[in-house]
Formats: sequence, structure tokens, C-alpha cells
Amino acid sequence: MKIGIADTTFARANMGAAAADEIRRHTSIRIERYTVPGLKDLPVACKKLIEERGCDLVMALGMPGGAEKDKVCAHEASQGLQLAMLMTNRHIIEVFVHEDEAKDDKELAWLLEQRTREHAVNAVKLLLYPKELERDAGTGQRQGFSDVGPARQ
Amino acid sequence: MKIGIADTTFARANMGAAAADEIRRHTSIRIERYTVPGLKDLPVACKKLIEERGCDLVMALGMPGGAEKDKVCAHEASQGLQLAMLMTNRHIIEVFVHEDEAKDDKELAWLLEQRTREHAVNAVKLLLYPKELERDAGTGQRQGFSDVGPARQ
Amino acid sequence: MKIGIADTTFARANMGAAAADEIRRHTSIRIERYTVPGLKDLPVACKKLIEERGCDLVMALGMPGGAEKDKVCAHEASQGLQLAMLMTNRHIIEVFVHEDEAKDDKELAWLLEQRTREHAVNAVKLLLYPKELERDAGTGQRQGFSDVGPARQ
Amino acid sequence: MKIGIADTTFARANMGAAAADEIRRHTSIRIERYTVPGLKDLPVACKKLIEERGCDLVMALGMPGGAEKDKVCAHEASQGLQLAMLMTNRHIIEVFVHEDEAKDDKELAWLLEQRTREHAVNAVKLLLYPKELERDAGTGQRQGFSDVGPARQ
Amino acid sequence: MKIGIADTTFARANMGAAAADEIRRHTSIRIERYTVPGLKDLPVACKKLIEERGCDLVMALGMPGGAEKDKVCAHEASQGLQLAMLMTNRHIIEVFVHEDEAKDDKELAWLLEQRTREHAVNAVKLLLYPKELERDAGTGQRQGFSDVGPARQ
Repeated sequence: MKIGIADTTFARANMGAAAADEIRRHTSIRIERYTVPGLKDLPVACKKLIEERGCDLVMALGMPGGAEKDKVCAHEASQGLQLAMLMTNRHIIEVFVHEDEAKDDKELAWLLEQRTREHAVNAVKLLLYPKELERDAGTGQRQGFSDVGPARQ
Repeated sequence: MKIGIADTTFARANMGAAAADEIRRHTSIRIERYTVPGLKDLPVACKKLIEERGCDLVMALGMPGGAEKDKVCAHEASQGLQLAMLMTNRHIIEVFVHEDEAKDDKELAWLLEQRTREHAVNAVKLLLYPKELERDAGTGQRQGFSDVGPARQ
Repeated sequence: MKIGIADTTFARANMGAAAADEIRRHTSIRIERYTVPGLKDLPVACKKLIEERGCDLVMALGMPGGAEKDKVCAHEASQGLQLAMLMTNRHIIEVFVHEDEAKDDKELAWLLEQRTREHAVNAVKLLLYPKELERDAGTGQRQGFSDVGPARQ
Repeated sequence: MKIGIADTTFARANMGAAAADEIRRHTSIRIERYTVPGLKDLPVACKKLIEERGCDLVMALGMPGGAEKDKVCAHEASQGLQLAMLMTNRHIIEVFVHEDEAKDDKELAWLLEQRTREHAVNAVKLLLYPKELERDAGTGQRQGFSDVGPARQ
Repeated sequence: MKIGIADTTFARANMGAAAADEIRRHTSIRIERYTVPGLKDLPVACKKLIEERGCDLVMALGMPGGAEKDKVCAHEASQGLQLAMLMTNRHIIEVFVHEDEAKDDKELAWLLEQRTREHAVNAVKLLLYPKELERDAGTGQRQGFSDVGPARQ
């Protein structure tokens, strides 16, 4: 089994390195990396990781900018990722950190790494331990900032 | 015959458990569960339930957050569900409860369960009793809050 | 030849019955009905009417609600209908009456039936009398409210 | 070789007739016409012109209305046209004139015909004289209103 | 190996010529050009460059206008490009310069050429030197205006 990691030169932290490091803490599964210029290059990169390089699951890591144009760009990339998943029957974990989610560069750097790592754990669970996700169904899990918890305490 | 149930760890109530419970009240049909992290992981999970685990119909259960970003996310997931249905010729009942539809956590917990249960009844009808739906054509049915009824009383 | 009619329990008038009645006034072609809960269930229902029940053309009848969420829902259903047409090379006549197009329940009931009937005539023409449509090319035809007519009188 | 022309009864000028007339001024290529009720019926009509009636290129002619609903409708039709092109590897020249682009009915009638005719010339070039388009690359060409020209004079 | 270049007569600078010139500075790879009228004609042109003219990677060069209609048009073209990539498993580098990104015609002419050239370098790297992109992962690269750099200095 293999996990693919696709990331960008546009992002402002090495999300791909963080993902690879986190995955290695939990499993010795093989990892394939693929770096592209920007968000819109991610969907086909993920599909190639699955179909040409044999990945069973891929993480798509990106950082949309804060302008309106960037939001549209992220939306188009997300639609492409949906399509790539449905064409391959494989999960692609989308990890997008919008530049304007963080209040400054320091928090941005933290959030880029933290969310990537928490989603890397999800990727491992989806592939190897699906029962752990079922156990957490409906418990208000979040990646990056704190969990919210269930509505009925 | 089998019904699939896909839900998320992001939602704030165990929608999957509610759906399974309701379906069992109406039929002894077999049920397959699949829990994923978030909304955008649902479409491929539904397609896998249909193509790899033999489900004839799937319920896709999710709770979009209240922020603008979450609305876009829900839209992308919905588009993915449309595509998954058209690629498989199977119904996927989308049950999304937007976090901001409820006025507080208590109502949210109620709505998450209530809408899920009413759609579970629809799922059973679509698969086993389609004539019951035809009988209700154009009668202003709603799931969760009260029915509206026909325009001409 | 067969015409399919897909409608919903969500709508506030029996659009499916109106469509069937109107079609029967113009042709003795066979009709297949399929009622689903809501708008988003229509695209796959239409595709199944074409591929599994042999319909040559389908009418997709629905009534989007007036809230912003409902507009997004209608948009997703319309995209699904486009895709279903392109996957099957068959026309699907979309008849959507937005709840907020009418000023009250009485006008809504009238509009739901009137637009459905006028589109039913279009459906028959598309399938049986395409030359009649070509004769009306660019003449500002509308369904439900009055025709607008050509720009150059 | 054949060029297809798809137009609507909704538009307020006979765009299809204008397109056919213009094409005939430049080439004796065969023409197939297909008139449908509205914008959303165009994509599948274009695909049928290509796949069932042997057209090598199609013009899709429509006039979106000025209301918000009509903008969404045009967007859905455009997405369908994109998909139809990619499924067939054939060009479909989209000629949409928004009703609110013109200041009155007289200008609207002029614009509907003028833009159609200029795009008809593009259609002929794409199919028969692609080198002429390459020669005009980046020169700020427009269809209907005046050309803008290159940024660096 | 071959790189395809698709551009438009609508843009206000010869982006295709700039791309070809830049690619030739870095490699002697063969180049195929294809000029179309506007943005929406690009996706199928790119797909034809890949499938009918044997290109391994394509650059899609366009200049969306500044009006709201033009933004929607760019969005539709981008979605088409995503789809074209996923249907072919080939990268299509989208280089769109929005007319309103520049403060005047002089800056527009500069930006159209500069962004095209920087993306041409990315195209060459993606095809021939993927390790160079991986080395720059997460370093805040931009094309046209200045790089932003990583969040954590």
C-alpha cells in the first residue's frame, strides 16, 4: 500500500514534508510525493499519483490566498478533486488552509502544519483503521483549531 | 438488497446511528456503514458503498458549518453526490443539516436526528415502496420541520 | 416511444399529473412516472427513466423554495440534469417553478400547472414535431407567463 | 464536412437564420439546424448534432434574460457546453447575447445578429482556416461591439 | 515529447508567442500552437492538442475581461480545463491574467508577458525537472508579481 502526497510551491509552508513526517509516525506505509505550482494543478497530480504511481489514497495539500479570485480558484480545485475521487474510487484528503484563516504569519505557519498533521492521521485511519472513524461519528471533530464536540452534551 | 449509510466525524450528532435505527424499524434490509472525516469525503464513500460493497441505495449524512467557507464546501459535496448518482444509476439521499438552521445546540441535536429519520423513511420508500411517493406527489412534504402542504387547499 | 415524467413530493402541486394530462391531449405516446422526495433526486431518476425504463425524453418537474439554500439546491439539480442529458444523448425538459416567482399561493398553484403544461407541449414537439420549433426560432416564447415576442417588431 | 446550428425559441431574434446566412457567404459547407425551447436544451442538442447528425463543429446560439435566475441558467448551459465539447473533442462556439447588454430592443436586435455573424466567421476559420486565427492571437478581438486591440500599441 | 500552447484572439498581447519563446530558452522540445477566439474555446483546444496532436503538457493562455460576466466566463473555462486534465491525465498549465489586475495598459502588457514566461518555466519543470518543484514546495512562489516567501522566516 502507498499514500500519495501532492503539494504546491505556492503555499507558504512545506505541507508535504509535514504530512510525510506525520504519516511515518503512525505507519511504515510507502509515500509518493508530487509537487506542483498551484492549487489547480493538484487534481490531475492526485489522479496521476493514483493511476500512474499506484497510490491507494492521496493527500492534496494547498493554501488558497485571501483574495476573491483565490476563493474561486480553490473552489475549482475542490471540484476537480471531487471528480478525481469519483473517477478512481479512491479517497483524496483535501487539506486547504485559507491564508485569511490566520491572524498573522506565525499563526499561519502553525495552522498549515497542524491541520496537515491532523488530516494525515485521518488519512491513515481511512486506509488502515476505518473502525476508529466510525467510533467518532458525529462527535464534532475539527482539524487545526479545537474540536467542537457533539451538540447534545 | 442493502442500504449504505455514510456519515462524518465532523457532524455534531450520530446521524448514522439514527438512520440505521430508523431503517430497522421499517425493514430488515442489510445496512453498511462508512464514516469519513468531513462532507467532501462523502461522495466517494457513497460510490464505494455502491460499487465495492453492493449497496442499492445510500444515505449521505452531513452537517455543514455556518461560515461562508462551509457553504461552498457543502455545495462541492452536493455536486459530487450528483455525479456519484449519475455514474452509478443509484439514488443517494442527501441529508444535510446546516448548523445555522437551528437556533441553539438543543434544536440542532433534535433537527440532526429528526431530518435523518424522515429521510430514512424516504430511502425505504424509494427502494421498496415507490408507489407511496407517487401518491404524495406535489403535496409539499418537508423533512425535519413541518410539512407545508399543497398551494391549492 | 415513451416519455418519462419525474416529479417530487416537495412541490406544492401535482406537476406530474398535469404533465401527463397535457401530453395525452396531444399524443397517445406511453408515459412512465417516477416520484422522488426532492429536486436533487430528480437527475438520477431521469437517467433511470431513460436507461432502465426506455424513455426517449423526460420531463423533470420541481419547485425550488424561496430561500438562498433552495437556490443552491436548484442549481445543483440543474447541473445534474445537464450531465444526465449529456451522458444519455436524450432531452430532459427542466420545468422548475421557483416558489418566489408567484405573489401568493393561488398564483403559485396556477403557475405550477401552466408552465408544466406549456413545457409538456414543447416536449411533444421536440420528440415528434421538431420542425414546429424551428419555425418559432427567435420569437421570444415563454412558458407560464406571457410570450415576449421578437425584439424587432 | 458539416456545421451544426442550435438555437432557441426563447431568443428574440432568429440567430440561427443569421448564422446560416453568414456561413453560406464564406463556404458551401453543409449546415444542420436544431431549434430547442431554451438555453438549457442547447448542450444536448449540440452533442446530438455532433454524434447523431455528423457535425464537425456546432454553433450554440442563445439569449439569456436579464434577471438573476437567467444568469444562473446561462451559467448552467455554458457548463453543459464545456462538457459536451470535452466529451466529443469538437468545438462548440457559444454565442450568448445577454438581454441586458443592449440599451433597447433595437440595439438588442442588432447585437443578436451582429455577434452571431462575427462568431459564424470564427466558426468557419476554426474549421477551415486555423492559421488566420493564429495570426490574430492576442490582438484584442471582440464579437458584436468594437474590437479593443492589443494593450501595447 | 511535445508541449502544446493554446491561446486566444481575445487577449491583448501575444501570450502564445511569449510562451513559445520562453520554452525554447530552456529546452528544444517540440511545440504545437492552437489559437482560438476566446477563453471558453480553450479547454477543448487543449484536449485536442493532447489527444489529436500528441502533446504531453499544454499551456492554456487567456485574459479574462474585467466585467462580472467575464469572471463567470473565466470560471467556466477553468472548470473545463480541470475536466480536460482529468480526462487525459495530462497537466494543463492555466495562465489567466485578469484585465483588472493591472492598473493600466502598459502594466497589463507587462503582466501578460511576465506571468506567461514564469509559467512556461513551470511547464518545463513539471515535464522535465519535477525534483526542482519539490525543492521549492511551500516557499510562497508567485507568477508575474513578486514571490511572497514562506510564512515562517
